[in-house]
Amino acid sequence: MPLVRIDLRAGKPAAYRRAIADGIHQALVETIGIPPDDRFQVITEHPADGMVVDPAYLGIQRSDDVVLVQVTLSAGRKPAQKRAFYARAAELLAREPGLRPQDLMISLLETTWENWSFGDGEAQYTQ
Amino acid sequence: MPLVRIDLRAGKPAAYRRAIADGIHQALVETIGIPPDDRFQVITEHPADGMVVDPAYLGIQRSDDVVLVQVTLSAGRKPAQKRAFYARAAELLAREPGLRPQDLMISLLETTWENWSFGDGEAQYTQ
Amino acid sequence: MPLVRIDLRAGKPAAYRRAIADGIHQALVETIGIPPDDRFQVITEHPADGMVVDPAYLGIQRSDDVVLVQVTLSAGRKPAQKRAFYARAAELLAREPGLRPQDLMISLLETTWENWSFGDGEAQYTQ
Repeated sequence: MPLVRIDLRAGKPAAYRRAIADGIHQALVETIGIPPDDRFQVITEHPADGMVVDPAYLGIQRSDDVVLVQVTLSAGRKPAQKRAFYARAAELLAREPGLRPQDLMISLLETTWENWSFGDGEAQYTQ
Repeated sequence: MPLVRIDLRAGKPAAYRRAIADGIHQALVETIGIPPDDRFQVITEHPADGMVVDPAYLGIQRSDDVVLVQVTLSAGRKPAQKRAFYARAAELLAREPGLRPQDLMISLLETTWENWSFGDGEAQYTQ
Repeated sequence: MPLVRIDLRAGKPAAYRRAIADGIHQALVETIGIPPDDRFQVITEHPADGMVVDPAYLGIQRSDDVVLVQVTLSAGRKPAQKRAFYARAAELLAREPGLRPQDLMISLLETTWENWSFGDGEAQYTQ
């Protein structure tokens, strides 16, 4: 159910981008109960001038490797689950592909359960 | 008013992508009362590794042709209208360009009427 | 905190795109209290068939230069602030890079304060 948009600077190997996507998904599975096969991700590479990110907002030192992750998910997760997701995502990506935790920016968009169709023209979550 | 983001694998002809965009818009017009000229769509092609989609979540068999559609629209549509939209979109895209209904994933993001400016620096829906 | 997505037709110089991004950010700072260093923007260029925009919805004459701006921000801004943002953005972009006000379409997505992590795996706004 989550639709995950990942935006980052172009130039990394495919395996690097895949590791980002894998880590974000694993963190969602572990911390907020997303089923392992509930995975829908869009990873977009951008030229240097296609992302403008402040290098120090809130005292966090960001580099050109910054990754912007926006997750659309159904409403209902508690704040503690969201915090666990941020922490676990940063931890997993630090391990593989070696992203600095300062370079992971995440935002969540919450929507209702009736706002999803996973195929066949049906609203599977309202059935 | 809807802002529609359509993400799909690169490699299809322009006419194919246009048919996807046309069908989504027509379904919005027919099922949830969007004016025919209220059309704002972004269609983005991605390389093979730019989309990671589970091939069988909820038992739906997805292919590399999967299309992810995210519609931002003003809140207020009833569940029955949303379900009608999903069904009609799948039906129209199956007809033209021949998309398998299993390959159409839709999500909705709802926002308020004051959250739109269609030009001229004004909030047209609050006037 | 705002995550700003800017979509426009490919073919403009980098300085043109940068001026769009700068103007949107300045308008957010001036009208709705965004800190100057709270800047996270993704600017994406699209081929001609990658954007489908009605050329006259609501009587506004749009050209191929149309720019679609979608801002994700924390909820709580008053309607008057939002209207001020639309107006100021149109004004600034008309000045530099010379965008016609009719060609600026803005939408806002509001989310909660706990839905942001700006790095380090933490939810900075809930601390």
